[in-house]
Amino acid sequence: MERKEISKAVLKRLPGYLSYLKGLDVQYISATAIAAALNMGEVQVRKDLAAVSDGGRPKVGYERATLIDDISSFLGYDNTTDAILVGAGKLGQALLGYSGFDAYGLNILAAFDVNPAAREVDGKQIFPVCALPEFCKNRNVLMGIITVPASAAQEVCDRLIDCGIKAIWNFAPTHLEVPKGILVQNENMATSLAVLSMHLQAQIKK
Amino acid sequence: MERKEISKAVLKRLPGYLSYLKGLDVQYISATAIAAALNMGEVQVRKDLAAVSDGGRPKVGYERATLIDDISSFLGYDNTTDAILVGAGKLGQALLGYSGFDAYGLNILAAFDVNPAAREVDGKQIFPVCALPEFCKNRNVLMGIITVPASAAQEVCDRLIDCGIKAIWNFAPTHLEVPKGILVQNENMATSLAVLSMHLQAQIKK
Repeated sequence: MERKEISKAVLKRLPGYLSYLKGLDVQYISATAIAAALNMGEVQVRKDLAAVSDGGRPKVGYERATLIDDISSFLGYDNTTDAILVGAGKLGQALLGYSGFDAYGLNILAAFDVNPAAREVDGKQIFPVCALPEFCKNRNVLMGIITVPASAAQEVCDRLIDCGIKAIWNFAPTHLEVPKGILVQNENMATSLAVLSMHLQAQIKK
Repeated sequence: MERKEISKAVLKRLPGYLSYLKGLDVQYISATAIAAALNMGEVQVRKDLAAVSDGGRPKVGYERATLIDDISSFLGYDNTTDAILVGAGKLGQALLGYSGFDAYGLNILAAFDVNPAAREVDGKQIFPVCALPEFCKNRNVLMGIITVPASAAQEVCDRLIDCGIKAIWNFAPTHLEVPKGILVQNENMATSLAVLSMHLQAQIKK
């Protein structure tokens, strides 16, 4: 189908539909049934799915396999995105060794570290940071994952942008300054933990 | 100092200050300097810090070590929070083996899985899910981490709540229904990847 412009809000809901659909074992499914299962508004689900798939038929709904393909293809999960990771500490190594990203079309090619403690993790090589520019240029890498400490994150971010990186997945608990056209997606585990632990403290005081 | 009520917005900014302060090597620091470094409003930083620390002095600022202690203690990082993790697949094992959570006062005691593939990861035991109620009761665990597939997450969530869990850190890409008084913090990596990969597709088309 012709590719429509969709909002970031719709985009953020699509992975939820996808994971729900993948867990099912039926041939057809209606937007109504999906809405009920995910506790969402039926109109919203209907519009979201119509934005990415032509396959809905009245009274029958969507063929599950086709809908999965349409959402995956819309999200770019069928085109693999190559990424590099900077900061091969505990979290970096955990991400490097996590094979679950394949399902989302993310392929971490290699990691970089100022002072690599190991030469590879799960078959992925860890290079010194000075090798970054050449690697990014040769492999035409556009996505960078930052897993360095907060104090080093901005410098790493600047280097990645110099190397041609356009999208940054930031796991460092800090704000990054970037020029226009560069997207930063923050994954702040420290913030999540602060919210959770504050809730528990409030519960315990009750 | 007397504990004040603070908003969730303030709470979410505190880990950022903390990680910035930890990366510094000075004895005193002013709210003005912190605001400039983190590219934030000076008034906001001043108010945030005053809410958690009494230590600010005119013209001198805060003693860095004291401010670090005050924020850490406010966030409960000095009281260790015990948690259990359900779903010992790739992501679950990565989190289980990640030692960086210690710094935030999170201690993952053990993991549970419907069908444990291993008996332990990095010295942490993996038990069958049926052992969950007894373990949570004996150890008085209040935080649960969900790393099962989306299709199983709600069932796991319900079981955790039955076991007395009050705060849930959800890594499954799905919406969870919970009763009042239970906090769910979602960590949706699939959503982050969708946003990043969509940005790259738009960049490439330009």
